[in-house]
Amino acid sequence: MIVARLRPHVPIDEQTRLTSAWRHDGHRSFHCRAGRHTLVTFPDLAPASPAGEEFVALLRATAAVETVVDSAQVPPLGSFAATGEPSAVRVADAWSVGGGSFTWIAGPCAVESAEQLMAVARGVRARGAHLLRGGAFKPRTSPYAFQGLGTDGLALLRDAAAATGLGVVTEVVDVAHVEAVAEVAEVLQIGTRNAQNYPLLREAALTGRPVLLKRGFGCTVQEWLHSAEYLLAAGNGRVLLCERGVRTFEDASRFTLDITAVPLVKRLSHLPVIVDPSHACGHGDLVAPLAAAAAVAGADGVMVDVNEAGHTALCDGKQAITPDEFGALVARTGRILHSAEPMEPVADHAMVSR
Amino acid sequence: MIVARLRPHVPIDEQTRLTSAWRHDGHRSFHCRAGRHTLVTFPDLAPASPAGEEFVALLRATAAVETVVDSAQVPPLGSFAATGEPSAVRVADAWSVGGGSFTWIAGPCAVESAEQLMAVARGVRARGAHLLRGGAFKPRTSPYAFQGLGTDGLALLRDAAAATGLGVVTEVVDVAHVEAVAEVAEVLQIGTRNAQNYPLLREAALTGRPVLLKRGFGCTVQEWLHSAEYLLAAGNGRVLLCERGVRTFEDASRFTLDITAVPLVKRLSHLPVIVDPSHACGHGDLVAPLAAAAAVAGADGVMVDVNEAGHTALCDGKQAITPDEFGALVARTGRILHSAEPMEPVADHAMVSR
Amino acid sequence: MIVARLRPHVPIDEQTRLTSAWRHDGHRSFHCRAGRHTLVTFPDLAPASPAGEEFVALLRATAAVETVVDSAQVPPLGSFAATGEPSAVRVADAWSVGGGSFTWIAGPCAVESAEQLMAVARGVRARGAHLLRGGAFKPRTSPYAFQGLGTDGLALLRDAAAATGLGVVTEVVDVAHVEAVAEVAEVLQIGTRNAQNYPLLREAALTGRPVLLKRGFGCTVQEWLHSAEYLLAAGNGRVLLCERGVRTFEDASRFTLDITAVPLVKRLSHLPVIVDPSHACGHGDLVAPLAAAAAVAGADGVMVDVNEAGHTALCDGKQAITPDEFGALVARTGRILHSAEPMEPVADHAMVSR
Amino acid sequence: MIVARLRPHVPIDEQTRLTSAWRHDGHRSFHCRAGRHTLVTFPDLAPASPAGEEFVALLRATAAVETVVDSAQVPPLGSFAATGEPSAVRVADAWSVGGGSFTWIAGPCAVESAEQLMAVARGVRARGAHLLRGGAFKPRTSPYAFQGLGTDGLALLRDAAAATGLGVVTEVVDVAHVEAVAEVAEVLQIGTRNAQNYPLLREAALTGRPVLLKRGFGCTVQEWLHSAEYLLAAGNGRVLLCERGVRTFEDASRFTLDITAVPLVKRLSHLPVIVDPSHACGHGDLVAPLAAAAAVAGADGVMVDVNEAGHTALCDGKQAITPDEFGALVARTGRILHSAEPMEPVADHAMVSR
Repeated sequence: MIVARLRPHVPIDEQTRLTSAWRHDGHRSFHCRAGRHTLVTFPDLAPASPAGEEFVALLRATAAVETVVDSAQVPPLGSFAATGEPSAVRVADAWSVGGGSFTWIAGPCAVESAEQLMAVARGVRARGAHLLRGGAFKPRTSPYAFQGLGTDGLALLRDAAAATGLGVVTEVVDVAHVEAVAEVAEVLQIGTRNAQNYPLLREAALTGRPVLLKRGFGCTVQEWLHSAEYLLAAGNGRVLLCERGVRTFEDASRFTLDITAVPLVKRLSHLPVIVDPSHACGHGDLVAPLAAAAAVAGADGVMVDVNEAGHTALCDGKQAITPDEFGALVARTGRILHSAEPMEPVADHAMVSR
Repeated sequence: MIVARLRPHVPIDEQTRLTSAWRHDGHRSFHCRAGRHTLVTFPDLAPASPAGEEFVALLRATAAVETVVDSAQVPPLGSFAATGEPSAVRVADAWSVGGGSFTWIAGPCAVESAEQLMAVARGVRARGAHLLRGGAFKPRTSPYAFQGLGTDGLALLRDAAAATGLGVVTEVVDVAHVEAVAEVAEVLQIGTRNAQNYPLLREAALTGRPVLLKRGFGCTVQEWLHSAEYLLAAGNGRVLLCERGVRTFEDASRFTLDITAVPLVKRLSHLPVIVDPSHACGHGDLVAPLAAAAAVAGADGVMVDVNEAGHTALCDGKQAITPDEFGALVARTGRILHSAEPMEPVADHAMVSR
Repeated sequence: MIVARLRPHVPIDEQTRLTSAWRHDGHRSFHCRAGRHTLVTFPDLAPASPAGEEFVALLRATAAVETVVDSAQVPPLGSFAATGEPSAVRVADAWSVGGGSFTWIAGPCAVESAEQLMAVARGVRARGAHLLRGGAFKPRTSPYAFQGLGTDGLALLRDAAAATGLGVVTEVVDVAHVEAVAEVAEVLQIGTRNAQNYPLLREAALTGRPVLLKRGFGCTVQEWLHSAEYLLAAGNGRVLLCERGVRTFEDASRFTLDITAVPLVKRLSHLPVIVDPSHACGHGDLVAPLAAAAAVAGADGVMVDVNEAGHTALCDGKQAITPDEFGALVARTGRILHSAEPMEPVADHAMVSR
Repeated sequence: MIVARLRPHVPIDEQTRLTSAWRHDGHRSFHCRAGRHTLVTFPDLAPASPAGEEFVALLRATAAVETVVDSAQVPPLGSFAATGEPSAVRVADAWSVGGGSFTWIAGPCAVESAEQLMAVARGVRARGAHLLRGGAFKPRTSPYAFQGLGTDGLALLRDAAAATGLGVVTEVVDVAHVEAVAEVAEVLQIGTRNAQNYPLLREAALTGRPVLLKRGFGCTVQEWLHSAEYLLAAGNGRVLLCERGVRTFEDASRFTLDITAVPLVKRLSHLPVIVDPSHACGHGDLVAPLAAAAAVAGADGVMVDVNEAGHTALCDGKQAITPDEFGALVARTGRILHSAEPMEPVADHAMVSR
């Protein structure tokens, strides 16, 4: 694996010319734009081989190449070493996720009606949310369960976004819906069940929209980063990683939020990390402390289930909080983040091995 | 949830007439053919409700209805109570999986070349295999890894099947490939990463081919049965469940084979259960004892990675065994099964709750 | 289960008289002092039974009884409802853990020499630590590995404590050592491997010293609370719960820190919760973000491995941080806690069920 | 690590002389008798070091030494390479566990009364059991739960054993009870919660009685083998390993029986492996298929909960089976084992690494 980082302002046609030339040399390459950088990887070249050494020398001699990373860090395009800094992901030229800012994504788990969605959207907008979450297409464990409002739900999301100025984050579960979802959503969400659905990842990436990639509840951090690499290798560098809990023997919470994954991934990768405490714990009452924990652990944002009704009782397993509760946690977390000096993660090659 | 089991020889047009009539009553229904039976479920009807009781009475008064199962067993179409006996799944009018027979599925993990595949196919055919496994489309953790020979691999599978008389079991990973795979494969395999990829399940079911559904490595038994229900509710009753290990803290084996799931699922569901010890343990040396264990625990068949080269050394993590090793395990397991009187599982409602 | 909370200033002999009377009524009882309260539980009395109702009435009519909690919350003496407020645990009349204060416990994993221990003790004392951790008796996976300095290590701990004014927290692994450890340690630590070693728990409790109870790495939250109940039922209400990570399939960190357990246990129990991020993650580099996360999630303190050498490299799996790194994380976490208004957890009966 | 295997008939005083001489050379050593062999390990000697090479040469030149194993296999005394063959463990000069025979251990989970125990003992004796299991000291999650009949229970076990000729297997939970338990029990059982309670392991080993060591439900295979090494290093080579399920996310069974651990441990270690399907699955209905699976996977015996009442219903979570059900599973498993040629496991160094 070799990764080359191009200088910031190399024109597109110069990039294309270079890529063609490298392909002419017989080396498969994949590239994407991540933050300020264009990254190119050559997955078949071993840096320590004669061909690899020769090629690294060629790259180093190329004016458009800023640096060559020939470490063993895999996956390469998503690795921290590729950019040498955290990436900021632009969302619809209106928001920037990662790279120092903190993003709030809030909304109902499922879009149920125009009234419900609009009320929640206004509620979270007024309390600091940047992006509106809400499921129009819902993957459900049972084939007989409500599968979401579908395209009607997408229309409601568009209306709520237009009325509030929030950007839309919504899940896509089917390759057949990718186009329709991308017309409405500023960010396409890939759910935990589809974390290794590679055809869906590829189609989502090809829309050019930012993609929020939930971690599979049975997937390791390395597998999650490799799933993200499918998006990057398809040319889409605007990837948001979302930790949402993994499956363990503990049954007091729905899943076990892997808070350690937050600072770990910030060291392994340049991609922003979002945390979803609502799905992780399944108890609305625990969302606020976990959101704050995620923030000080280094997350670039939090995604929260908010609903007008909120959780009536914990025994119902309701995980949503009310807009007012959301407002309180935004305020508390904001004070906390303001007081915490940012931590500066540095890529650590040793952590990638194994 | 209500399930009705129709009498064995109700003509298709009578079935259609009934279904239309029930739909006319405003009740959503889903049906499939499982073994000798046609099953119909009405997911929105609670048996204990007035409407449910009335409808159950109507069903009981319908001549074509053999019995009405109004238990709380979910998911309904796959539940043991639906058929009251284990289902046998016909594969291409040449094989029957489950219902008393034991099926051997063997072949290379990935189709690599005509020579390799033909040699393995002949090798396992001579030693007792019924179906040939081999991946043409391979889902890989890394986007840069070999993703299989694709349609070329399908052609090789067709040739090997034609030359040996084995049926083909091969994985489909993309809705776009379902049709091409179904032209070659007697059984479509859904891999562990796609165990909750519902659009893919639906498309695979609609081919009418038997579907071998691997358990998601992070999925509970209940989730696995619900994924199978997606296939059944799409009208395809020819479903083979495949246990292939779940993810745990133990790292001496690749995954942890959940042997308990075999007798458990045989009590919860009428569907045949296949066990894949190769992927579960990741050590060719451990495949034979685990295959025998699966057989006596009640599995209806075993799926094994077989390759000419086999495993050169355990440290390579090679999980394939050679055709000769396969022959030895078929012989040993056959003797064992011959000596073991079959166990008669009986559906136990209590095990379904929770 | 019935729990009675006595009024704060009931004299000891009055308590003894009451307990004797209740025992005379034939009801087994267990009691302990937790924070300001004396708690008594009658484990064999079902509140809804005639005998239970009669006994609750008797308790309510007893002047020394402040309130009777007849909820289904188990285990009873440790439940939040028993005190109705978080308990503060007095340590050697010099420190108070929980109940609003935040406690730093720091020191080397193992006591290695007088020089090492004294240097670390002075280092962490100067940077804000309250208690000194250090293992004299080390439970090791291999019988051939270094098992600690034993009683020599205890002497070194006493010297370091005397020189710095820190209190000592050290592990006891053997009933035979309980007395010797209690002579030196202000807090007896029960390690993760002994989390369900009930004879050791009982002996540790009987010393009257505060006990820091690590969660078993394979234990649920409910099992952890039940282990604590062994300490409480033995009459020792000075219990500190310590979350130190559970075992999951994720192998990028040594264990998976269950951050959700922190706010959850604060709602279920009145006992203080300490978090040990060092053993949970196994990477010194990740300790600071996890310590801060624990603090804002509601932990009452953090226990950190600190060593002069610190971690030379992550690939060594070294989890210790240097005194300077410790100082930086104390400062950052302090600023964060100062800005975060305390959360007021309220006991929620629904969360206890199951 | 170096392991020396002495020739079978070296007299004890010659062994003592040798051990003293080696200690005189400054090398720590630990030894035990396993099956026909006396094994000695020198944990501090690296075979590849000059001192190690010199010492191996000395050992090879010693007449009493049959062979020197200088592999990296750890833990050494329990490794398959140490004996080069499966060990048989003598129990009270009346039974032999492992080494080709198959052992049935059966009885009630807890000793409740003389009548209950005697009836079960007679029932299982008549149907093929060799050893009687039954708990007199019960470790319980809650301090308020029934903790067993204690020494009264031991007396009942002694009576039942005398009346039936069965050997007694019973758990010891407290160092203080080791002597009393060893007076009655032919085999001391260490429970899953005490799998890493090293002082208890040491005391149990020092009785000289065979020890049945349950795997910790959160422990890896390697940790389990290391716990066994504590017994071996204390001089007791009569160790029975007992797999009883590990903790995973699956909640349809109480624990997840790790069937793969059976053939794996048979390759890593010379010690007999017993499987406890009752505690692993928690459903009496699943015990028979799992017992048979364990047998064909290579287990040397099975331990089953048997009670007169058996399981009234699965929903009760009752895991015991009746004596008649026990008889049926002994018969079926017997037929299966008779038809299965024994597998010959060979130690595989590669599997030990990592």
